Amino acid sequence: MREKIVVALGGNALQSKESDGTAEAQLKVVKDTCKVLADLSAGGYEMAIVHGNGPQVGRILLASETAGDVVPPMPLEVCGAMSEGYIGYHIQQGLRYELARRGMAVPVCTVATQVVVDADDPSFRNPTKPIGPFYDEAEAKKLEQERGFDMREDAARGGWRRVVASPKPQRIVEIDPIRIMWDKVIVICAGGGGIPVIEHADGRLSGAAAVIDKDFAAELLAEEVKADALIILTEVEKVAINFGTPDQVDLDHLSLEEAAKLCEEGQFGSGSMLPKVEACMKFVRANPDKKAIITSLAKAQEALAGETGTVFTFHR
Amino acid sequence: MREKIVVALGGNALQSKESDGTAEAQLKVVKDTCKVLADLSAGGYEMAIVHGNGPQVGRILLASETAGDVVPPMPLEVCGAMSEGYIGYHIQQGLRYELARRGMAVPVCTVATQVVVDADDPSFRNPTKPIGPFYDEAEAKKLEQERGFDMREDAARGGWRRVVASPKPQRIVEIDPIRIMWDKVIVICAGGGGIPVIEHADGRLSGAAAVIDKDFAAELLAEEVKADALIILTEVEKVAINFGTPDQVDLDHLSLEEAAKLCEEGQFGSGSMLPKVEACMKFVRANPDKKAIITSLAKAQEALAGETGTVFTFHR
Repeated sequence: MREKIVVALGGNALQSKESDGTAEAQLKVVKDTCKVLADLSAGGYEMAIVHGNGPQVGRILLASETAGDVVPPMPLEVCGAMSEGYIGYHIQQGLRYELARRGMAVPVCTVATQVVVDADDPSFRNPTKPIGPFYDEAEAKKLEQERGFDMREDAARGGWRRVVASPKPQRIVEIDPIRIMWDKVIVICAGGGGIPVIEHADGRLSGAAAVIDKDFAAELLAEEVKADALIILTEVEKVAINFGTPDQVDLDHLSLEEAAKLCEEGQFGSGSMLPKVEACMKFVRANPDKKAIITSLAKAQEALAGETGTVFTFHR
Repeated sequence: MREKIVVALGGNALQSKESDGTAEAQLKVVKDTCKVLADLSAGGYEMAIVHGNGPQVGRILLASETAGDVVPPMPLEVCGAMSEGYIGYHIQQGLRYELARRGMAVPVCTVATQVVVDADDPSFRNPTKPIGPFYDEAEAKKLEQERGFDMREDAARGGWRRVVASPKPQRIVEIDPIRIMWDKVIVICAGGGGIPVIEHADGRLSGAAAVIDKDFAAELLAEEVKADALIILTEVEKVAINFGTPDQVDLDHLSLEEAAKLCEEGQFGSGSMLPKVEACMKFVRANPDKKAIITSLAKAQEALAGETGTVFTFHR
């Protein structure tokens, strides 16, 4: 029996820190990432891939808003759908080649994925996720009035930006096709956390101007497909306490109780490590006999073999 | 046994002629289109949907090029991949609702689709498909030099435009996932004709600056899945000869031989009806016991029942 895993890919798996933002630069990084993913597949793991899309959707939005006088700007959720096509295409192309080099003919398929969020999610009342270009105050006020955007000043960076909600994912609309393909295809889905949609009383879905955290979307997928493990790949090999201080301690293993305590202590950055830790905790809480892992892309295979990374389990 | 069909959706299925180019306007038209598609599914047809993307990819390119000073312009094939995510998302959303209203729980899934074209396709030596914005001569010369674009003057419309190749589709890279889902899922794939890629000697794929005709891509898909019928939906109920003249005659039925003769006579516009007729001819030539149909979106179901449209068969 092959082990089923959901792999959440962080931004560094798609572009380098020095990236000029071109598609060519992205494809180069994606090709390296695909070597790791192909090794995982060759190592006997059945997997789905959930990637981030922050910088990509930012650039799509920036182009769309900059060109707003000549072509109608696209809604945020459409920009998200576009980024799924863009990034998925690159991963498909890179992964297919790396699989073929390893003598494997596993198909790779990107699924445009809608993810239902709750219209009453508290984040809609207090949107905090900044997206898209910077504006001056006059432009910001105009966007608030004309397009109903929530704008917030980012004093440190000297400008105003749109902020949107980051609601929790409730349901993956395209879960059936993902399940149908699961054991035969490497599925790339819920890219960027998925296209956020709200379900109305009559069953109709409509796009929401929001951004779903891709680690929470990956966690939901892992629950829905009954994955054996959720593995969140980021820039560090292990989660640490006292991060970036002389007292930093890297963690090998966290029980649910231990992780909850560290969260309460404020050990993890709210925009970076905290949601990853919370996603891992949610997965092991729902699946007490399974594990979640946070590690780096390069260490993914070793971490799955139990040799490194920070492993989350229900009990110690 | 349900009949297997491949449906090629023309531009009018995605936006109205008066469209302002917004995503909202597109979604409105797509919702109406999905009523027809849901009726087909309810009528017992298993189907895949191949949609056009001309205006959409044109707008994505226009935004990308207009904003070129602040964010790197995206390559054409990436714009194509983005349009697949964008349009596929809208069809998924609209179709799911219309299916649910009919009491059907068939999943709908958009697949980002790479389509292999031949690097030696003659169209690469003589690109003629205009795409993206208009430029003046100086800008056009600059793009030729700096980015290697082929630019051509469109005297009638008073400007220069980039032209790209329109090679024939050879192979659908993601055909396996499409086949795996076929009998359980309505698959939206090869949107805009697919993302054109060239296969290199080592098996590597790379994007090509080209546009594949979506009717030829739909035809290739219909061959690959052994569809019972290829149905190309456009603005007219039937193919006509002497189109737009007092001698116009609408055609109910064409054998391969009859269709070939009319093509030779130059009865069909090379940028409009000719590729559709050629796609139909190719399908019945490869499948002498099957049929291809050209009709309007509104008449799709009647045409499949043999009551209208222009039906192509191998023999009379």
